[in-house]
Amino acid sequence: MEWTELMGHFGALLSSITFIPQVAKTWKTKSAGDISINMLLIVITSTVVWLVYAFSLNLLPVIIANSIIFVLSGLLIYFKLTFKSQNTEN
Amino acid sequence: MEWTELMGHFGALLSSITFIPQVAKTWKTKSAGDISINMLLIVITSTVVWLVYAFSLNLLPVIIANSIIFVLSGLLIYFKLTFKSQNTEN
Repeated sequence: MEWTELMGHFGALLSSITFIPQVAKTWKTKSAGDISINMLLIVITSTVVWLVYAFSLNLLPVIIANSIIFVLSGLLIYFKLTFKSQNTEN
Repeated sequence: MEWTELMGHFGALLSSITFIPQVAKTWKTKSAGDISINMLLIVITSTVVWLVYAFSLNLLPVIIANSIIFVLSGLLIYFKLTFKSQNTEN
């Protein structure tokens, strides 16, 4: 595997796991007041766009990464809407 | 422009602006306790990896998107380390 391709796979891996620590932290603390719901909505929208793009070009790493991000950002939106906080606006 | 290419540009645009609402919210509230520092460190690391990848393949939209994400996630790391909160672990 060429090193450029390797960097692409490494980038896809890192992007895939991005939200795992946030999901773990939010699940543990049951507090999501500081997290921007608008950020989460942009993230989940972008994964849908990237999935359409990647399916049409058959880009498996992009499909896998965005499927994982879709699920994790969906979980965070659910947490954000479920867990009460002093700071709920935005 | 083909629609697939258009989706790629739309995805890159959405990914670029992902952290703008979070930076705005955190700046306004001066509170970042609920945000996972590990998530931010993964994000900024991934942008460096994607930038190496994109520069070597001359992928301008990926370069632009990740440069923006690099700056915004760097700002969030600075906010996270600067703003005091009741909830600072993780």
